[in-house]
Amino acid sequence: MMLDKALDYLKRGHFILLHDSSDRENEVDMVISAKHVTPEHIAQMRQFAGGLICIAVDDIISRNLKLQYMHESLQQYSVDEHKDMIYNSTKYGDHPSFSMWINHTEVKTGITDYDRALTANEMARVAEMPEPYQINYFKRMFKVPGHIPLLKSAPDLIKTRQGHTEMSTYLLRLAEMSPVSVICEMMDSITHKALSLDKAKKYADSNRIPMLEASEILNHSKIYA
Amino acid sequence: MMLDKALDYLKRGHFILLHDSSDRENEVDMVISAKHVTPEHIAQMRQFAGGLICIAVDDIISRNLKLQYMHESLQQYSVDEHKDMIYNSTKYGDHPSFSMWINHTEVKTGITDYDRALTANEMARVAEMPEPYQINYFKRMFKVPGHIPLLKSAPDLIKTRQGHTEMSTYLLRLAEMSPVSVICEMMDSITHKALSLDKAKKYADSNRIPMLEASEILNHSKIYA
Repeated sequence: MMLDKALDYLKRGHFILLHDSSDRENEVDMVISAKHVTPEHIAQMRQFAGGLICIAVDDIISRNLKLQYMHESLQQYSVDEHKDMIYNSTKYGDHPSFSMWINHTEVKTGITDYDRALTANEMARVAEMPEPYQINYFKRMFKVPGHIPLLKSAPDLIKTRQGHTEMSTYLLRLAEMSPVSVICEMMDSITHKALSLDKAKKYADSNRIPMLEASEILNHSKIYA
Repeated sequence: MMLDKALDYLKRGHFILLHDSSDRENEVDMVISAKHVTPEHIAQMRQFAGGLICIAVDDIISRNLKLQYMHESLQQYSVDEHKDMIYNSTKYGDHPSFSMWINHTEVKTGITDYDRALTANEMARVAEMPEPYQINYFKRMFKVPGHIPLLKSAPDLIKTRQGHTEMSTYLLRLAEMSPVSVICEMMDSITHKALSLDKAKKYADSNRIPMLEASEILNHSKIYA
């Protein structure tokens, strides 16, 4: 089963590809565990995926760190003129999962492959700490606004929202890993749109990366709910 | 003079490279006018630069649109625990110039080459409108939080802050163009750090792109102040 293969790849610190659904973003993301991500992986994501390199955090850690969705934070924002601009839902149907943009405190600019891998690795470390230490470490060791967006998983994960954020978190939990992943949307440099499912499958095959369909994850969650 | 060549390239809608200073970020950015940027240019930036693709807006348009710095907005943020995390100054000495992250309202996901070019083109259009129309168009046609960060130029531009944001804006004004640019930091996929000055020069030479030093811009501003 492709799901088992994907979990095995994630456990070994490798990439998987994840397609949401043709009814939604219809996008394929590269996904890797934040604990295992290296500067080389960050370079691969910017060269072969090309979207935003984001850190997806599970719903429990998000709650412990008091992360808000950015669209909620902006409601408390001081400039009234901008309040009409806040997303309720996007064209693909869901609210965005963006929270704050962070840098680890040790980075120089925050954008190099080294810097982004460090920020991601340290976010995975936060998730492995006992709950009472999490927010203190987060407050002390990260800065805002930085160069990597945190994506906050919806409560109850894929029961609530079937985005790449929740799917990746669900997979890491299933793999019994720190539920923090690094994800990046795959772009097509010829059509200048999102990489099609067919081209992503070819990329997956030629690079021996398992490619998962959201439907397989959703079926699994129904069987084991 | 390299400055004249750079202005000529910007006017014709081509890229230039811009190095700040070895005392600062010591980073080379690809810079292009937001009015002229195409999906092909966005793809070039993600493939050959690899940093964040940002829209830098001049200080006057920023004021008209009531843009705040994100580090200022976050001060009004509702979660007290996160206030300690806000940057005063970065390791390279300045505050970050991030404002809000936007999408144009017509995009699907906001991240494709088409989507990011559209968002940038339309921000240039805002800047060309008579001042009273700017904020209304901005409010109606853009959504937050989106996939491209707006960078807000400091008041008085390079007299106040000598970042890529202010330098790019200064150049566009000098070229008598809409003072909105798209900029992206150049990364090195071998060292995983920022692309060195030497390597950036080689890239500039082999792709026939003018590469400007901040010092040349600063000298110009002193002579013509």
